[in-house]
Amino acid sequence: MTVSETVENVALGSYLFSRLQQVNSLKSIFGVPGDFNLSLLEHLYNFPDLNWIGNCNELNAGYAADGYARVNKFGVLVTTFGVGELSALNAISGSFTENVPVLHIVGTSSTMAKKLNNKTLHHLIPSKNTWEVAQDHYVYEKIVEPFSCIVESLNDDDLTVLQSKIDNVIETIYKSKKPGYLFIPSNLADIQIPVDTTKKLEFNSIDKHPELTNQIVSKIIDKLYKKKFAILADNLIENRKDVLNNFIQSNNIDCFSTVLGKSIIDETFEKFHGVFNGKISSEGAADTFSKFELILHLGVVTNEINNFNNLKAKDFVGDVVELGKDYVLIDDELITSVDGEIIFDSLLAQIEPMKLCTDQSVESWGSKRSYPSSPTLLNATKKLSQSSMAKILESKLREGDVIVCEMCSFLFAIPDIKFPKDSLFISQNFYGSIGYALPSTLGASLAIRDAGLESKRRVILLQGDGSAQMTIQELSSYVRYGIKPTVLLLNNDGYSVERVCCGPTRSYNDIQPNWNWLKLFNVFGDVENKSVNVRVETNHELEMELNKDDGELKMIEVMLDKMDVPWRFSYVAGKAK
Amino acid sequence: MTVSETVENVALGSYLFSRLQQVNSLKSIFGVPGDFNLSLLEHLYNFPDLNWIGNCNELNAGYAADGYARVNKFGVLVTTFGVGELSALNAISGSFTENVPVLHIVGTSSTMAKKLNNKTLHHLIPSKNTWEVAQDHYVYEKIVEPFSCIVESLNDDDLTVLQSKIDNVIETIYKSKKPGYLFIPSNLADIQIPVDTTKKLEFNSIDKHPELTNQIVSKIIDKLYKKKFAILADNLIENRKDVLNNFIQSNNIDCFSTVLGKSIIDETFEKFHGVFNGKISSEGAADTFSKFELILHLGVVTNEINNFNNLKAKDFVGDVVELGKDYVLIDDELITSVDGEIIFDSLLAQIEPMKLCTDQSVESWGSKRSYPSSPTLLNATKKLSQSSMAKILESKLREGDVIVCEMCSFLFAIPDIKFPKDSLFISQNFYGSIGYALPSTLGASLAIRDAGLESKRRVILLQGDGSAQMTIQELSSYVRYGIKPTVLLLNNDGYSVERVCCGPTRSYNDIQPNWNWLKLFNVFGDVENKSVNVRVETNHELEMELNKDDGELKMIEVMLDKMDVPWRFSYVAGKAK
Repeated sequence: MTVSETVENVALGSYLFSRLQQVNSLKSIFGVPGDFNLSLLEHLYNFPDLNWIGNCNELNAGYAADGYARVNKFGVLVTTFGVGELSALNAISGSFTENVPVLHIVGTSSTMAKKLNNKTLHHLIPSKNTWEVAQDHYVYEKIVEPFSCIVESLNDDDLTVLQSKIDNVIETIYKSKKPGYLFIPSNLADIQIPVDTTKKLEFNSIDKHPELTNQIVSKIIDKLYKKKFAILADNLIENRKDVLNNFIQSNNIDCFSTVLGKSIIDETFEKFHGVFNGKISSEGAADTFSKFELILHLGVVTNEINNFNNLKAKDFVGDVVELGKDYVLIDDELITSVDGEIIFDSLLAQIEPMKLCTDQSVESWGSKRSYPSSPTLLNATKKLSQSSMAKILESKLREGDVIVCEMCSFLFAIPDIKFPKDSLFISQNFYGSIGYALPSTLGASLAIRDAGLESKRRVILLQGDGSAQMTIQELSSYVRYGIKPTVLLLNNDGYSVERVCCGPTRSYNDIQPNWNWLKLFNVFGDVENKSVNVRVETNHELEMELNKDDGELKMIEVMLDKMDVPWRFSYVAGKAK
Repeated sequence: MTVSETVENVALGSYLFSRLQQVNSLKSIFGVPGDFNLSLLEHLYNFPDLNWIGNCNELNAGYAADGYARVNKFGVLVTTFGVGELSALNAISGSFTENVPVLHIVGTSSTMAKKLNNKTLHHLIPSKNTWEVAQDHYVYEKIVEPFSCIVESLNDDDLTVLQSKIDNVIETIYKSKKPGYLFIPSNLADIQIPVDTTKKLEFNSIDKHPELTNQIVSKIIDKLYKKKFAILADNLIENRKDVLNNFIQSNNIDCFSTVLGKSIIDETFEKFHGVFNGKISSEGAADTFSKFELILHLGVVTNEINNFNNLKAKDFVGDVVELGKDYVLIDDELITSVDGEIIFDSLLAQIEPMKLCTDQSVESWGSKRSYPSSPTLLNATKKLSQSSMAKILESKLREGDVIVCEMCSFLFAIPDIKFPKDSLFISQNFYGSIGYALPSTLGASLAIRDAGLESKRRVILLQGDGSAQMTIQELSSYVRYGIKPTVLLLNNDGYSVERVCCGPTRSYNDIQPNWNWLKLFNVFGDVENKSVNVRVETNHELEMELNKDDGELKMIEVMLDKMDVPWRFSYVAGKAK
């Protein structure tokens, strides 16, 4: 077959969607329609396996695409010129900060409008002088570079390059675990482009420096054979979650997770010792951590949330190897421009497990912590606190659960909760844009459905009331798309996180009180009242509700005190008693 | 008194708020609290006349500040670092595009954090390399320039310049009628700065070229004395609304408004001839327009919405003088860098009214148009259409009414509606970000209250259902702050604007159906059911509801057909029958 025989003409819009449905089990495309993306969206209907998920607004759509990508490893968001894309920018900034691969497709002004530039188009900011009719059609595109791993602005100058441009955007986002932008002028969706039908998307990186990789791997292995070590699993090793867990389990390796790595390691492993974060580690974890001679820190993310008091693993243990996404730090030598996943794969391939220096004497987390795995010790009739809620929740979680937690005070209780097998934890813990979790739950739930796992994985959303108000309309999409998460709406009458920091009684920390949380699904379209909506005030009531298998969309309004926050949050805020 | 005697030390936050309460009748500050702005917000409570208006999210807050500024000529929005400011960017882009003076204050990382830059802060995007701890603390500030008339990033390098920097930001925004940014590091709110107490805010521009002004004014006057002229009032003459109306009324001058100038001229004037926009002018306006020899086009805004088919006034009338905000176009000569308001003031001061060449023979709009000023001709039991709704609405509007209209299909009926005396029309007609109007109504209503006019001016919101879903939670702020607009919720089951353009039956134009619009105020905190909530389906029902003076917050759900749009929209979309 010659090259020309494998080349077909395909409409650009159809080509794009045909590629997107090849990315893992991607079937849902999030967004809001607008006059600059309608011609593109028309092509989506050529793909019966792809579903348009119309969100209530673009920020919510961005958050939903992010939640989807945290399950599927790739999410897609479609917005329109200016008014749409800008509203989603904060979501993209969050995806960038939290390493979530989201493709943001923006429908823009046509190539003709850009070239002529002789009338001032709606949705596009005008010139600063009022006498000029010409506009900068690229003004919005110019601002997204800091938030993107790749920005591609398509045009019709050379149609032969469009296939590879589109493929490159998808592949780069996938491999970088960062969002990227694809700007598509409204007239290009229908344009026929030449497509080499033999070309496949390539999601695996090629090792550009195999010798360097081998040197690094040898050094690491040498240490692992000589020193009593534990693994500290961090956020950016997530793409290797399965092989990592197999390795740990097979060899009974001591391990910890970071705050942002929570749920990467199976916490039911006997030698999982909890969440390490210096003084605010989960119970016993810091003591155990300091007993090792070497820490292999995988998928390192260094920041204010993961590194309490600005301390790193090496401040607690004599020798630390940091295997980052794009660097290695070993024996104080920083080696950059390497691919951490390639090194990790090579490491596992070369290791001889029998030679590993493990320490079978360290006690397990379960045996050490005073934290009950069952809440039976709690006073059943007592009003709920964030602390009792954490204990009850822990005892009710099940294998496969997906736990989504808002940036709210309860997030600071999460490191204390031991997760079940095959769980997945989702939160925007570092970027911390409140309102994220509620639409993200939509995305995560649909990704689980698209992967055919809806019957096996429950989704539980832990949502503060102040943050819920930000994005509340997306509950309507829960109804529209038939997802059935359990929402624990933590009603503590405003912004408790901030009340603890500053202005406990100030009006700026109040929200409109008396929202009828239990009627929201109903007013947002659940006209047949299929959803289950209940309020709980005591330990017993929450436990009973979490025992039930309603099999329906469920809202549990959890009544909490305004100033009640988890111990860890008080500590971080400098208000610990 | 020496200079030093008039200098006092004042906390920066307090100084800022003391200045803001000097801008017209400003009493409301919109926004969302966040850890980087809390120390600033504390200073707000030193000013009993200033009220913190806590919105449900930042985009809504931005829209509310815009609505406020359209009434008060200045609005203020406060957000926090990254997560807050980015969510509001689309609102600021809208304010820029639509010439609305909004000050966006952003609380940012402290000056110490910026200088040390030794830990990766939350809310701030990290380096693209995962091994670098340092961040670009100015990454968000760098992107706002295209959306701003001024961007000021405060620091503590020289405290003596901070007073003038703050004053300059406020004055520039006010005079430019554009949004601007003030970035305040979180530790600077409490810092004492030297303040010259004798310095006043200066909102009047100084004429830098008085001779040029005189030359231009003479030329214009000369034309007005010689040619039968009419005034075309456009959006950017709004700051001179009162004097302009006095001038027109005193001299019985023929006049028109543009689409974006709607409500600037008193439409009850005998010689107001309607909204001019070429073929989609209000009835009779285009014919009348072309009878004049000269058009004095004041406050010109040239764009796709104001200039149907890319045509300008000069395409219809032999001689047009354009008096823009920052330019004059006269006899095909473009003169830039002038101040249109100064020229206008000078023009009015120098004109000898008796010499004006007016044409008393032109018929009035009222006498020409077939449009009924009373809807009695309508079939009372007939289902409502957008056309009948426009007629009913026109007959029920009252002096002083503020009409806020969403970017929805009904917006295209507005040019046909004759507004009452002292009315104010608010819409984001050119930028067109759907969801704008609902929070904007909160801002406009509060501005009217702050000006002491709540008992005299009603606020009526015309809101599409698809767009309402974008920002619906802000209805909760209506309840929280006790405003009482009448909301006409146009329920036509999705995005009708887009159905007409593309994909009439496509899922992307659907929204979650069966929202219980009439229960929304109740679930959002109106627990005592003080609000009035009714559904109307016929002409008669709508008329009856608009006859009532409930004196309460009111939601009228107006049932309309999916594909029913005003004639003008069909025409613009190329779908006219």
